[in-house]
Amino acid sequence: MIFGSDNMAAASPRVMAALQEANSGTARSYGNDPWTKRAEEQLAEVFEHDLAAFFVTTGTVANCLALSAIAEPWNAVLCHRQAHILLDEGTAPEFFTGGARLIPVAGTDGKITAENLRRTLERLPADPPHNVTPAAVSISQVSESGLVYRPEEIAALAEAAASYRPAGTAAVAGAPLRKIRIHVDGARFASAVASLRCSPADVTWRAGVDVLCLGATKNGALAAEAVIFFDRELAANFAERRKRAGQLLSKGRLLGAQFLGWLKDGHWLDLARSANAAAKQLADGLSKIPGVRIPWPVEANEVFAVLPRPLDAHLRAAGADYHEWYTDGMPANDSLALGEVYVRLVTSFATQGSEVQAFLDAARGA
Amino acid sequence: MIFGSDNMAAASPRVMAALQEANSGTARSYGNDPWTKRAEEQLAEVFEHDLAAFFVTTGTVANCLALSAIAEPWNAVLCHRQAHILLDEGTAPEFFTGGARLIPVAGTDGKITAENLRRTLERLPADPPHNVTPAAVSISQVSESGLVYRPEEIAALAEAAASYRPAGTAAVAGAPLRKIRIHVDGARFASAVASLRCSPADVTWRAGVDVLCLGATKNGALAAEAVIFFDRELAANFAERRKRAGQLLSKGRLLGAQFLGWLKDGHWLDLARSANAAAKQLADGLSKIPGVRIPWPVEANEVFAVLPRPLDAHLRAAGADYHEWYTDGMPANDSLALGEVYVRLVTSFATQGSEVQAFLDAARGA
Amino acid sequence: MIFGSDNMAAASPRVMAALQEANSGTARSYGNDPWTKRAEEQLAEVFEHDLAAFFVTTGTVANCLALSAIAEPWNAVLCHRQAHILLDEGTAPEFFTGGARLIPVAGTDGKITAENLRRTLERLPADPPHNVTPAAVSISQVSESGLVYRPEEIAALAEAAASYRPAGTAAVAGAPLRKIRIHVDGARFASAVASLRCSPADVTWRAGVDVLCLGATKNGALAAEAVIFFDRELAANFAERRKRAGQLLSKGRLLGAQFLGWLKDGHWLDLARSANAAAKQLADGLSKIPGVRIPWPVEANEVFAVLPRPLDAHLRAAGADYHEWYTDGMPANDSLALGEVYVRLVTSFATQGSEVQAFLDAARGA
Amino acid sequence: MIFGSDNMAAASPRVMAALQEANSGTARSYGNDPWTKRAEEQLAEVFEHDLAAFFVTTGTVANCLALSAIAEPWNAVLCHRQAHILLDEGTAPEFFTGGARLIPVAGTDGKITAENLRRTLERLPADPPHNVTPAAVSISQVSESGLVYRPEEIAALAEAAASYRPAGTAAVAGAPLRKIRIHVDGARFASAVASLRCSPADVTWRAGVDVLCLGATKNGALAAEAVIFFDRELAANFAERRKRAGQLLSKGRLLGAQFLGWLKDGHWLDLARSANAAAKQLADGLSKIPGVRIPWPVEANEVFAVLPRPLDAHLRAAGADYHEWYTDGMPANDSLALGEVYVRLVTSFATQGSEVQAFLDAARGA
Repeated sequence: MIFGSDNMAAASPRVMAALQEANSGTARSYGNDPWTKRAEEQLAEVFEHDLAAFFVTTGTVANCLALSAIAEPWNAVLCHRQAHILLDEGTAPEFFTGGARLIPVAGTDGKITAENLRRTLERLPADPPHNVTPAAVSISQVSESGLVYRPEEIAALAEAAASYRPAGTAAVAGAPLRKIRIHVDGARFASAVASLRCSPADVTWRAGVDVLCLGATKNGALAAEAVIFFDRELAANFAERRKRAGQLLSKGRLLGAQFLGWLKDGHWLDLARSANAAAKQLADGLSKIPGVRIPWPVEANEVFAVLPRPLDAHLRAAGADYHEWYTDGMPANDSLALGEVYVRLVTSFATQGSEVQAFLDAARGA
Repeated sequence: MIFGSDNMAAASPRVMAALQEANSGTARSYGNDPWTKRAEEQLAEVFEHDLAAFFVTTGTVANCLALSAIAEPWNAVLCHRQAHILLDEGTAPEFFTGGARLIPVAGTDGKITAENLRRTLERLPADPPHNVTPAAVSISQVSESGLVYRPEEIAALAEAAASYRPAGTAAVAGAPLRKIRIHVDGARFASAVASLRCSPADVTWRAGVDVLCLGATKNGALAAEAVIFFDRELAANFAERRKRAGQLLSKGRLLGAQFLGWLKDGHWLDLARSANAAAKQLADGLSKIPGVRIPWPVEANEVFAVLPRPLDAHLRAAGADYHEWYTDGMPANDSLALGEVYVRLVTSFATQGSEVQAFLDAARGA
Repeated sequence: MIFGSDNMAAASPRVMAALQEANSGTARSYGNDPWTKRAEEQLAEVFEHDLAAFFVTTGTVANCLALSAIAEPWNAVLCHRQAHILLDEGTAPEFFTGGARLIPVAGTDGKITAENLRRTLERLPADPPHNVTPAAVSISQVSESGLVYRPEEIAALAEAAASYRPAGTAAVAGAPLRKIRIHVDGARFASAVASLRCSPADVTWRAGVDVLCLGATKNGALAAEAVIFFDRELAANFAERRKRAGQLLSKGRLLGAQFLGWLKDGHWLDLARSANAAAKQLADGLSKIPGVRIPWPVEANEVFAVLPRPLDAHLRAAGADYHEWYTDGMPANDSLALGEVYVRLVTSFATQGSEVQAFLDAARGA
Repeated sequence: MIFGSDNMAAASPRVMAALQEANSGTARSYGNDPWTKRAEEQLAEVFEHDLAAFFVTTGTVANCLALSAIAEPWNAVLCHRQAHILLDEGTAPEFFTGGARLIPVAGTDGKITAENLRRTLERLPADPPHNVTPAAVSISQVSESGLVYRPEEIAALAEAAASYRPAGTAAVAGAPLRKIRIHVDGARFASAVASLRCSPADVTWRAGVDVLCLGATKNGALAAEAVIFFDRELAANFAERRKRAGQLLSKGRLLGAQFLGWLKDGHWLDLARSANAAAKQLADGLSKIPGVRIPWPVEANEVFAVLPRPLDAHLRAAGADYHEWYTDGMPANDSLALGEVYVRLVTSFATQGSEVQAFLDAARGA
């Protein structure tokens, strides 16, 4: 009954088999191996677009290196007030960008709306070099509340970013100083696509995304993330950035093979669908337990729930593993009553229906 | 006939099996898994010393993060003029240390002698804050010319570092401003230990080493490096440094399991002995080919050779893979004659005797 | 009628005379001149405490270098949501600290209360290294709304900082992981002391301040700021930090002499009293103009006012210079009505009573 | 008898008068004052070229910020092995550039020859991102041995830089990956121009210089340096860089007025000529003293001399102030005999003929 995080699972057997299969014979080092090359080609097919992909080992590196390519050290990156890059990656964003600033944007469901983005942009003091200038918007797909950005929501964000005019310069309409880029922290991108049932292209470049950090680690790999630029020009110095960050692996097959196994025959989406289904099963069951409520729609593989404390204690005593969560992630019109606790439960590709059932049985038995 | 680098090999089957075995069930994330814990304990046993070990994915990260823990941004790190950290890691050392300076030390065999270290230290302008102050000496085990530091050589370096007194402050003998730390880039540490037939402790903390970057990648792992502090105090902020560098893997078992498989029953030294033996076989055979000379003793798994250009062309045509090398790595009293080329051949644990034999046969057939 | 900023004034004649007087003969460079030495001694007398003082040319450098001495790159600095270091110094704080994070604290009058500080600290996720850990609190004296921190308010902040226990570690009471330091951005410190009529010591080290950036520039100097550590240990590497930041002036007399002239015979407080009196006169007069309100008490040399737009237009047409200001700096229970504008007027030591009178006459004539 | 450094002098009376004159009335802050604007225009006239000039307070800031504009953090800057930026500015170059690497170039007279530059460039390993790629050449005008670069020497350097083709890419002639820029550390630029009797343009943009750090501090100002870009595009982000470095002074008149006074009616060249003449007088006199030799031609305001130790002791006892100097700055075919010492004597605009005479009298009296 492990729902602490999807990063507690092992790799999917098929990903592991691909790695095992690649573990034979010599190969050119530093990403010049055939697995890496084929993985990059596969990504171009999956996204139906020419692209530049760079493989790294963690989501933190992927996100922060990606941001460094689109934000100068004197720029700001706007992200949701609960974004993973803002709260959970230490000061890695500052480290990799050379000191760019993260600026939080309000939003109740972990998502930034075009309206909120516009309002935040408008309120930014705009007298450089005294004030920082925005260069990027970063969104999390799946959001910090387990919701999924729809293509039109992302397109609206891209439109809001593109139409930004610093205060006091309204007169120079049509002449933005700098294009604000759209970055997606896609740690759970697979779950989002599986949920949306759209093409990966629809929710990325077609909607205006400039750079996607596609995470395989949480969804079936051991450690494999891809930084994907849909415009190669943005990647001009990325080889240097990756090397300088110590992320150019000598045995590139480790990353290339994982991605190949993960992408092959839509395995990544199968894994995501499985995780999503487990979350659905979990939420459906939980919502029927007296005293429990599920404040957010379950769109991917995360369930946020309000539990009575006795139930929480009972579940933990029964061996369930999950995290208490930040209450400021709750809906604006909801809050904890006395004796309640807000928790996050995450399913993974490896979560079995029987495991969810056992959890629900334990809950019902409380 | 692949002698380009030991990083062109796959992982050893036993390391891969350990990884496969670990790839099951859920585990606490971010290094709180049992494999990571056991690997750290194993290292303490192997080194016969209490220690703090941090696992990361590349040698560049290991070296540069380690240096950041012992050198402030206004300090200097002394290393051999051909050191890997100086020539082959881009500006990663500057990036991770926040701008510390690498200062090259002369030396003909890729090794720094205590005498050369002392001379370099003495010549450093010593009027801080105008001048940088030395904080660390970094050596490569195996050296850039394929030689191995003996325990007494390292002890002499540590002694030279400890007795450093900035010029003009000779009067304050016994009162060094700051202890100069000893760092070992141990990308091929296993080959060195196998060659020295000593205890890993003898050539590290017993000789005065403060921090060792122990590389498994080149010797049987896919991507696994350990930063090992023999004095836990030096590691006080290392968890923060590693996170900030994006090197805290969520699925720690990837690194822990590789190290466990690699260390188990002395597998790492078996692998190293095999690579070393192949290098020996290669050097012995090559040295008997007319016109070939081997300017450096072959102490580990690298062979540096001077070849007649026709032989070089013949070998490459026959499918041999190896790198032409920097001639300033040749012995001081040797140099290339017209029509000669200086090359480096590296063997790995996976190099077969038959592969070496095929190469020698091809060479003899030229 | 220049009320744009106190940095629009020239240097006070006495400061200029001190500089002129020092501009003769040779002197040891890099701060080893007699003026610098005497200025440091003077500061120790003024603050009635042993201290280490470092002179630099701008407030940005002073603040950011000071923060770099008390916050590591993986730490956070808490400051008011409108703090100058947060809004008006670009990303200099990140640059000088190597990537530390500024975290805004709520507060309506530009001041952080102990209560708000405590609440913010409590809400910080506290699972390092994933989350940043707080290392410093930075306050502005005078605050961004023109108010002055009283000694007991600062003492309360220092107490709140000292009693911080990261969530989940309440058990280890009495064992803070790291002392949170108190930094004062004293760009208008002289005005604050003049207003408080207390000893400079009362409102700094006696109240728990660790490092003060004492600004002379806005109050009579041309460019002269002092970073003052009341605990010399915190300044251990500050000479290196200042040099590395390019702020070790070769002709130290420029800074030393300005400070000597500024401090001599309490000149700095005379200047501040004059500026404060002009602000008082301005506020008193303005508050009697129909339609005008002064939402904050005028405690130093800044007046924040709500003006009817026609009055604003009239004043500007008459040649008055001042800035429209951020409305989120207004009191919580106040807001602009239609046709109103929020403005900031700053007086300096050089502001003449007649200039204020002319402004008030113009206002009355509207 | 002060010959320690030209930075030990005060400001020239005319520079001080200009500052005094500017010290009146209010002015727009942050460089928007009339003095700053006029100083920038003056520079354009002096250099006969459109340019972007940014004023800062120290040479370290000027040099390092300038380099940050032309070298990315993964690039290298080539400079003479004794360059001030390499030896005397701590790790400020790494700090401001975000971690770029300084690479020393050989040269016996403090100057880089085109030949030596070419040789160093050719020897650079050129396999990015493993190796750093060169982006700039930095030269000191006046050189570290007191010599002056002639226009044709600089043009030859610029030509050597422009024709750089990384090893192994000779085939792609005509397609340099990146233009290597030419930076001049002009701490003593005035002395060089006075010595060369050429137009400032001849020895800068006409010879291929991209960015000049023009130092007034050592030659009559208190603290005033200008970073001058002859191609405005290179300065695109310089306002942000300067602000982030804390070098945007609020009272810009401090810098603008110094430069105006310094440039007016060729005052800067008069000062330089005076300093140069004093050096000439000093060298001429010294060279006639038995046992003394002047190993380098005296072309500007620095005299390097080999003195018998007794003479050195006698002079110091008589009150003379100057620095012992690095012997590796001596000509290749010269070295110290037993009982000799190598010293540097620097004259300034303020050095009086009588002071030099007194020194020579003391020397003769030994």
